Amino acid sequence: MSGNFFGRIFRVYTWGESHGKAVGCVVDSPPAGLNLSEEDIQKELDRRKPGGKLASKRKEEDEVEILSGVFEGMTTGTPVSMIVFNKDAKPDAYKPIKDLIRPGHADYTYLAKFGFRDWRGGGRSSARETVARVAAGAIAKKLLSKFGIKIVGFTKEIAGIVCEPDLSDIESILKMAESNAVRCPDLEKAKLMEEKIIEVMKKGDSVGGVVEVVVRNVPPGIGEPVFDKLDARLAYAVMSVPAVKGVEIGSGFACAKITGSKHNDPVILKNGKIRFETNNAGGILGGISNGEDIIVRAAIKPTPSISIPQKTVNIKSMSETEIVVKGRHDPCIVPRAVPVIEAMVAITIVDFMMIQGLIPRTLLES
Amino acid sequence: MSGNFFGRIFRVYTWGESHGKAVGCVVDSPPAGLNLSEEDIQKELDRRKPGGKLASKRKEEDEVEILSGVFEGMTTGTPVSMIVFNKDAKPDAYKPIKDLIRPGHADYTYLAKFGFRDWRGGGRSSARETVARVAAGAIAKKLLSKFGIKIVGFTKEIAGIVCEPDLSDIESILKMAESNAVRCPDLEKAKLMEEKIIEVMKKGDSVGGVVEVVVRNVPPGIGEPVFDKLDARLAYAVMSVPAVKGVEIGSGFACAKITGSKHNDPVILKNGKIRFETNNAGGILGGISNGEDIIVRAAIKPTPSISIPQKTVNIKSMSETEIVVKGRHDPCIVPRAVPVIEAMVAITIVDFMMIQGLIPRTLLES
Amino acid sequence: MSGNFFGRIFRVYTWGESHGKAVGCVVDSPPAGLNLSEEDIQKELDRRKPGGKLASKRKEEDEVEILSGVFEGMTTGTPVSMIVFNKDAKPDAYKPIKDLIRPGHADYTYLAKFGFRDWRGGGRSSARETVARVAAGAIAKKLLSKFGIKIVGFTKEIAGIVCEPDLSDIESILKMAESNAVRCPDLEKAKLMEEKIIEVMKKGDSVGGVVEVVVRNVPPGIGEPVFDKLDARLAYAVMSVPAVKGVEIGSGFACAKITGSKHNDPVILKNGKIRFETNNAGGILGGISNGEDIIVRAAIKPTPSISIPQKTVNIKSMSETEIVVKGRHDPCIVPRAVPVIEAMVAITIVDFMMIQGLIPRTLLES
Amino acid sequence: MSGNFFGRIFRVYTWGESHGKAVGCVVDSPPAGLNLSEEDIQKELDRRKPGGKLASKRKEEDEVEILSGVFEGMTTGTPVSMIVFNKDAKPDAYKPIKDLIRPGHADYTYLAKFGFRDWRGGGRSSARETVARVAAGAIAKKLLSKFGIKIVGFTKEIAGIVCEPDLSDIESILKMAESNAVRCPDLEKAKLMEEKIIEVMKKGDSVGGVVEVVVRNVPPGIGEPVFDKLDARLAYAVMSVPAVKGVEIGSGFACAKITGSKHNDPVILKNGKIRFETNNAGGILGGISNGEDIIVRAAIKPTPSISIPQKTVNIKSMSETEIVVKGRHDPCIVPRAVPVIEAMVAITIVDFMMIQGLIPRTLLES
Repeated sequence: MSGNFFGRIFRVYTWGESHGKAVGCVVDSPPAGLNLSEEDIQKELDRRKPGGKLASKRKEEDEVEILSGVFEGMTTGTPVSMIVFNKDAKPDAYKPIKDLIRPGHADYTYLAKFGFRDWRGGGRSSARETVARVAAGAIAKKLLSKFGIKIVGFTKEIAGIVCEPDLSDIESILKMAESNAVRCPDLEKAKLMEEKIIEVMKKGDSVGGVVEVVVRNVPPGIGEPVFDKLDARLAYAVMSVPAVKGVEIGSGFACAKITGSKHNDPVILKNGKIRFETNNAGGILGGISNGEDIIVRAAIKPTPSISIPQKTVNIKSMSETEIVVKGRHDPCIVPRAVPVIEAMVAITIVDFMMIQGLIPRTLLES
Repeated sequence: MSGNFFGRIFRVYTWGESHGKAVGCVVDSPPAGLNLSEEDIQKELDRRKPGGKLASKRKEEDEVEILSGVFEGMTTGTPVSMIVFNKDAKPDAYKPIKDLIRPGHADYTYLAKFGFRDWRGGGRSSARETVARVAAGAIAKKLLSKFGIKIVGFTKEIAGIVCEPDLSDIESILKMAESNAVRCPDLEKAKLMEEKIIEVMKKGDSVGGVVEVVVRNVPPGIGEPVFDKLDARLAYAVMSVPAVKGVEIGSGFACAKITGSKHNDPVILKNGKIRFETNNAGGILGGISNGEDIIVRAAIKPTPSISIPQKTVNIKSMSETEIVVKGRHDPCIVPRAVPVIEAMVAITIVDFMMIQGLIPRTLLES
Repeated sequence: MSGNFFGRIFRVYTWGESHGKAVGCVVDSPPAGLNLSEEDIQKELDRRKPGGKLASKRKEEDEVEILSGVFEGMTTGTPVSMIVFNKDAKPDAYKPIKDLIRPGHADYTYLAKFGFRDWRGGGRSSARETVARVAAGAIAKKLLSKFGIKIVGFTKEIAGIVCEPDLSDIESILKMAESNAVRCPDLEKAKLMEEKIIEVMKKGDSVGGVVEVVVRNVPPGIGEPVFDKLDARLAYAVMSVPAVKGVEIGSGFACAKITGSKHNDPVILKNGKIRFETNNAGGILGGISNGEDIIVRAAIKPTPSISIPQKTVNIKSMSETEIVVKGRHDPCIVPRAVPVIEAMVAITIVDFMMIQGLIPRTLLES
Repeated sequence: MSGNFFGRIFRVYTWGESHGKAVGCVVDSPPAGLNLSEEDIQKELDRRKPGGKLASKRKEEDEVEILSGVFEGMTTGTPVSMIVFNKDAKPDAYKPIKDLIRPGHADYTYLAKFGFRDWRGGGRSSARETVARVAAGAIAKKLLSKFGIKIVGFTKEIAGIVCEPDLSDIESILKMAESNAVRCPDLEKAKLMEEKIIEVMKKGDSVGGVVEVVVRNVPPGIGEPVFDKLDARLAYAVMSVPAVKGVEIGSGFACAKITGSKHNDPVILKNGKIRFETNNAGGILGGISNGEDIIVRAAIKPTPSISIPQKTVNIKSMSETEIVVKGRHDPCIVPRAVPVIEAMVAITIVDFMMIQGLIPRTLLES
């Protein structure tokens, strides 16, 4: 109940603090018989890790070690425990502001909840915990790929600059998005976004944006009635990512401005199968997948750590004061949020596939 | 795992089909010692029930009966089971279209999942199941009121017409919203919304909108780290309501267009307590309540049942055809979604309050 | 968390009090496509209901009504809600002792937990709630029978009289057990047990015993490592039945007196398949089924309601006094516990079969 | 669902294989503000670790490292991750028998479940995973001690030799039990047990026994109605420990031979409080604690690894053969099971205390 696991039949538990010894996760459990190596995990962690001109200067190789659940190169069906040591933790950098509530962070709320707080960079509330999500998601993504399911995420919007890519070729979307520092598949927009981030960064400020994730080839029939709708649990998964303030499926908030005759996706036959002519539904009807692309979008708030002075309170003296948050922060977290949101979507989809019986407990006899 | 319960320590189970014998729920369990009568439930059900010029013509009194968990006018701490009989079920009305997939409905996805489907008005996938949510939510709301917590929902937008009410006096918001057929607290906008709905209804079409729910007086410290963030579970709860395509907290998608220096809510002292000068956070930081109003918004799609002809497929002959969905439908479901979303928010908040230990197992000794 | 559901992917929720309006359950959810009628449920309820010379004189027909989840004679894959009205509730009979703690009952513990208690025959703590377990178990048993799995329970011991039936023909065990009032498959022992119960009953006293349940044809491979072992969850399920004080699997407590060379079941080949020559394991090794009969035993305490005067406390005056519990009680609850324990075993097995993917979400396409 | 966690609001996740890199657990989460060091954990691990004349010759220091959740010597309220590296793993010792099914072990059942198995000493099914349970239990025990609750376990029976210690002074029971190699508080019986084990060990055979755990000072009112009874979840917890074949509460199986007038514990007043004159209930009535000692017993089967030749099957050639299990095994696992069962009991009690609201989320403000 303490919030540190996700999933029902495919469960991910995470642990670790930003400036503690390590962060890690337990994945309980992939089916037996999946080929799995540390390289599979590492390549996803590398997409998330800090570095580059637009990101935090914290130097973390984020090297992952698999501690259990893999034998002779294959998953055993028992928990895969993974660990990433924190190598560039600098807790002392936070000492000068340890009694100040950083605006936009969880400093005050953790204090209210637990009676004290780990002031070392936010402790458990830091986005550093998303390392564990990405590691777990790497297993989910690899597993889904065995069933032909692809997950591609990209930056849809930064600071009001929006791209509208053609999603028909998602391999190309992936390639283009991964080719630039903002993860935008539209290279012109990518350039504008980069410029905007640099401009804002120079002022010590930050910007937000929108991430979109597309899931292709999910079979119809996954998701559950009423409360555990596929879209409901995707919203749960994605809203749990730090800095997310909104989640949309398919048409999303735009549905409020469209009539039913435009919004309903016409039902058609394609190669003898029921399909939909448009995809306002975002691949989900009544909480259950309809075979079309699942489309999820997340609004990401501007990074709360900024070097512009802000009003705050000193909790020791209980007096109002100002804070300037220095340190190693991203002026825009959107590009690094992409693999994190992909991971949460992947974990959610695997969970539903297993509940529906579409991923068996062992891959060896199928 | 089959999707029919919600909550962790305060759990709601629902059951029933649109044109079956009854719908109902089990609330497991409110604390012992809460005064509870059928009137407490009925007044919330009455807010949701069909009728009026803008709603479905199905005649349901939605009279609730409490079957267990209340003794001598007080909850016992054991499950409260409630039932509402379906009195105006007309399954035969659906017979002519029982082999046609209704666009925008769950007909195809339930078929894909279960191998057959209850064609009587959608069966379990019908929004009629929300009767049970509202009944359960009535208990949650009553319980929260004992702890000074108020939940007020209203229509924020219909068909592009948006209201921006001043939220400082939520009693007045509630009163104004409940005074008109569209549940909009801005009476001028309410009139425009009504006119728009009538215009669309005449064409056999439908429209969507946005619901906003405000929760006042939630103490700081509820919500959990990482996955079970308060906002994450609110998104889960609200996205599980039929027709919802998007969920926002506080600034929501607008955060993508604001800089950090504007988005961060300044931390201040007010009567010696830590408070926030603005509320872009929507009352939640790092997934945990900060004491400010919790603000949730949901995008509601246009009702999929429309009498304009639509392309579809006959699953018996597996051929393309047209469908006209006649019957007793709402041209705009937004106003009736208000109490449903309030209910889901209330259930979620009670669950977190109990996990945090702020609502005890019995109210009798406190 | 309030204790009123059981199961993970196949869940049973129950509600209701002994002298309230009704008791009931929600089964969430059997796979779609199972033929199911009220008769299927009724025949199991009839095995449990009071009556006969050795049982309570409360007159309950225990007539079940299915409220949801069945359409055109088949389960839909959504929750099956069932209700049994209490027709012979006589709460007033408990008024004279409403301030006295009945020894051996939950009167004091419910009071301690909830701050007050439903004094009408124990309310929620009454064994009357097992009506709901048996109703849910009837669905589980029917479902298992589709997969060739049989569950047979019987009275193994009453008041020190023990039977040792040959389990090879379990159909015959079932037939013999159901032929007598104590549900013992050894007719000579059955007679002795009956005589003993009548003797004790005349003194106003009560006796306990042991129930054994055999599950045949469970495929090898169900159950989970570590905590959710099949035997662990069977112990959980069975110990949750009122009056159970112990649970054994296979050799049970006798294992403490045997050496390893005798206790280990030799591994052999039978028709080309791995089987075990003996069954001290009770069909479970490392928490996972091995294909042999699953053997569960439960110790049932003597009925606490006795008409012999007992020491107790009056909670109003907080003084020591005596109590004589009159009313409609069973002098030995063991025979009526048999279908209840079968039900809990069946629910547990279905849950594991679904988790292992051996029972699909729909029976229609298989 | 994969079986690797236990608990509802206080959850323990474990991972790791007998001859893999390490074993570990995540405790999610103790309340904030508990003083916690590695020494607190180590002293419990030392009670479980191999060594001594009657135990396995595997040399493991079982040195624990806390990886998260503790800051400045106190728990933070977030997950405590712990790791114990396997330093004396010798997987090659198992190579000669990797195609043979070891009788009494989980070899065949894991194979049936997952399609292949980790043959290195049982992998995940090895009792080595109980290291993680004891580490987690150490936190639970420390936490309970803050609330005055003591948990003492001891060997009640080995190979038919039974002790009946006076439980009134449990500190002395603990001291005596910890003073000898078999953990029996009756020193004469301890000697007989030791001799019996040595005798059996010389023959290459093994023996079983019974462990008893006493929990003192649990407040009345913990445990939940119906399914999540305190005794039900204790049975679940304890039966999940490797080698356990039976669980009893209070009178246990002996209740089958006693009449109600003897079995019911008379209700009395003691210092103005409701108490019970005897304790056949084992501290639990209707699934809820009554304030008396909670008494749990577990039957432990003889160690399945014996050096006497046994019938088995070679899974490669699918032919019958013989096996002699050499290696580093305990001739009697009972003494080392004591701290493991204590740990499971402690974890279960903490979970219920937190659900009842008796252990708050932070210890700092109380």
